[in-house]
Amino acid sequence: MDQGNIAMTTARIIDFLNTRRPEGPCLVVDLDVVRDNFKAFRHALPDSAIYYAVKANPAPEILRLLAGLGSNFDCASVAEIEMALDAGATPSRVSYGNTIKKERDIARAHALGVNLFAVDSHEEAEKIARAAPGARVFCRVLTDGEGAEWPLSRKFGCVPQMAVDVLVYAHQLGLVSYGVSFHVGSQMTKLDAWDSALADAKRVFVQLAKQGIELKMVNMGGGFPTKYLRDVPSAEAYGQAIFGALKKHFGNNIPETIIEPGRGMVGNAGVIKAEVVLVSKKSDNDNHRWVFLDIGKFGGLAETMDEAIRYPIRTARDGDAMEPCVLAGPTCDSADVLYEKNMYPLPISLTIGDEVLIEGTGAYTTTYSAVAFNGFEPLKAYVI
Amino acid sequence: MDQGNIAMTTARIIDFLNTRRPEGPCLVVDLDVVRDNFKAFRHALPDSAIYYAVKANPAPEILRLLAGLGSNFDCASVAEIEMALDAGATPSRVSYGNTIKKERDIARAHALGVNLFAVDSHEEAEKIARAAPGARVFCRVLTDGEGAEWPLSRKFGCVPQMAVDVLVYAHQLGLVSYGVSFHVGSQMTKLDAWDSALADAKRVFVQLAKQGIELKMVNMGGGFPTKYLRDVPSAEAYGQAIFGALKKHFGNNIPETIIEPGRGMVGNAGVIKAEVVLVSKKSDNDNHRWVFLDIGKFGGLAETMDEAIRYPIRTARDGDAMEPCVLAGPTCDSADVLYEKNMYPLPISLTIGDEVLIEGTGAYTTTYSAVAFNGFEPLKAYVI
Repeated sequence: MDQGNIAMTTARIIDFLNTRRPEGPCLVVDLDVVRDNFKAFRHALPDSAIYYAVKANPAPEILRLLAGLGSNFDCASVAEIEMALDAGATPSRVSYGNTIKKERDIARAHALGVNLFAVDSHEEAEKIARAAPGARVFCRVLTDGEGAEWPLSRKFGCVPQMAVDVLVYAHQLGLVSYGVSFHVGSQMTKLDAWDSALADAKRVFVQLAKQGIELKMVNMGGGFPTKYLRDVPSAEAYGQAIFGALKKHFGNNIPETIIEPGRGMVGNAGVIKAEVVLVSKKSDNDNHRWVFLDIGKFGGLAETMDEAIRYPIRTARDGDAMEPCVLAGPTCDSADVLYEKNMYPLPISLTIGDEVLIEGTGAYTTTYSAVAFNGFEPLKAYVI
Repeated sequence: MDQGNIAMTTARIIDFLNTRRPEGPCLVVDLDVVRDNFKAFRHALPDSAIYYAVKANPAPEILRLLAGLGSNFDCASVAEIEMALDAGATPSRVSYGNTIKKERDIARAHALGVNLFAVDSHEEAEKIARAAPGARVFCRVLTDGEGAEWPLSRKFGCVPQMAVDVLVYAHQLGLVSYGVSFHVGSQMTKLDAWDSALADAKRVFVQLAKQGIELKMVNMGGGFPTKYLRDVPSAEAYGQAIFGALKKHFGNNIPETIIEPGRGMVGNAGVIKAEVVLVSKKSDNDNHRWVFLDIGKFGGLAETMDEAIRYPIRTARDGDAMEPCVLAGPTCDSADVLYEKNMYPLPISLTIGDEVLIEGTGAYTTTYSAVAFNGFEPLKAYVI
């Protein structure tokens, strides 16, 4: 594993940490990086509307920046919708993208002016027809998620044939059957993943057209990766692959498209500053060290679950000789271990009290953080 | 799996829910059950000091009740120590039981009057010698955790021979080498698990005595289970097994002992009220339903991770025919699925909007809950 040539901590973040010296583990997000990411997506897919996945990091400063840049917002709850509106988005720029909504939450979103809702079942279409009559809906189609580092299981979506039925049913209920969505899986690095999903989407379009219903939109979801330890394709490369697949399946009749980057928008913009609390062994002849940080699975690094995401970690001793270690968090919970099956190489000279920088942590950290597990405060964040 | 004869929701909880009708998912804890559990532990192990594991549920009402009943407190952080003191405990009734502590937190605990600290390494003993000179320490020994439903991995403790070295070293540093601790693993249902751990503890006592250091205490940790779907041995049965093992290994010279129940003290005292948000299938010929609740892995049910803990779930339709379903939470996170590999039988008639009671949820729910994942509020709790 080559960690040597990656440097995601920006000069602004380093300057902030050196100047402010914040106490405790904390996330620092550089808005300049978010702005660059937004521009890269817009440049790579100029004809797609960008719906930022608010759940990745709902910090008000990020939402305000993106609202100002013209972003739209993919929201998972009424609270997220309210945050997007507070940040300056109009309701027309909000999608209520969760397929699992309470009917009273649909009604609240509708009252706020939201007019675009996700469904993946007849039951959800019925709720929307009652609570947001006449609204636009898109139906999420199951994809196989192969090639994603954080695959999506079968929780969201239905098979394409059922999506046809759901959209016909929604139309009969007086809703506007507007389009199809899919999600190739988070941190997707296989460029052709979008091709097979777009083929499915096209088939749904064709079948609906046969029944006189003209779909207008394909929501291509997120899945755009951030760079952790391995290099990932650029937004440019994604854009070309996706545009190619759209041309291939829709020809000269490309529909409105939406993308929902979350991790790809903010992941590489954030760095967590943490501290080494203990370096120890379990026996005198132990082959490896245990390194304990003041942040772990319950303090914001939940995505190390099953060692799925492997964050780059920088220390002031990175020139020294390295040895693999088990890396763990500070709580009295035995599950609070970050990397054990696949141990993490860190400098042998690393010592109690050292600071470490955990890079690529701008997404899915602050809000995953537990309220007060073991009495530890939730992860603090500074957006600069 | 027989779910029929279990009824953990007390009349007081049912009355509270019927009268107050709290909105959203919430935990309700019945203090009468906590009081009964405390008395059962005291009756089962009359010679052991009870140190309640605050991390299981730090609600002030629970801490105040237990402080009043004479409980001591096992704390994982300075914040938990402060909560125990606020609840009425004296510092002499507090153990700082986390083996991973920042030196400045040890100093803060020491300044608050705490005089009992856990260690499992030379490095931690050094920190305590500097920040809490002269304090009492106990060294945690690794156990194998076999038979626990939530096994503890190797994160805490060191092998017994190293524990001897650590305690000798602590003595040399001017600390009071006070005892040995172990933890058989959470939700431990194998009664003889304590026997082999106590044999290890005795060996450490003997080796320290050879060097002129007289240990005084064995901290037998937690691991006392709460009743989820399967019956578990009573506190009485645990008490007998543990006392038998103490007699066997320590003869007429039984040391001071400590137990640290957390789950066993509050697990069965709490019930989460939740709501069915959606019941749907993924295709027309799907063999099973997906049932989505308004609480999931990130809202407080983190211990369903790997489907480790299987909570009893009651509905108003429990007399109806049952069928297994996939049970999932409400967030836009594909990992937010509670039971899928081992599907959960629920009434076929269960419907959107139905309330369900998730029993045995008094421990490790509220504080595991995420701050605001997907914009959802952390789990609310009512202690009655």
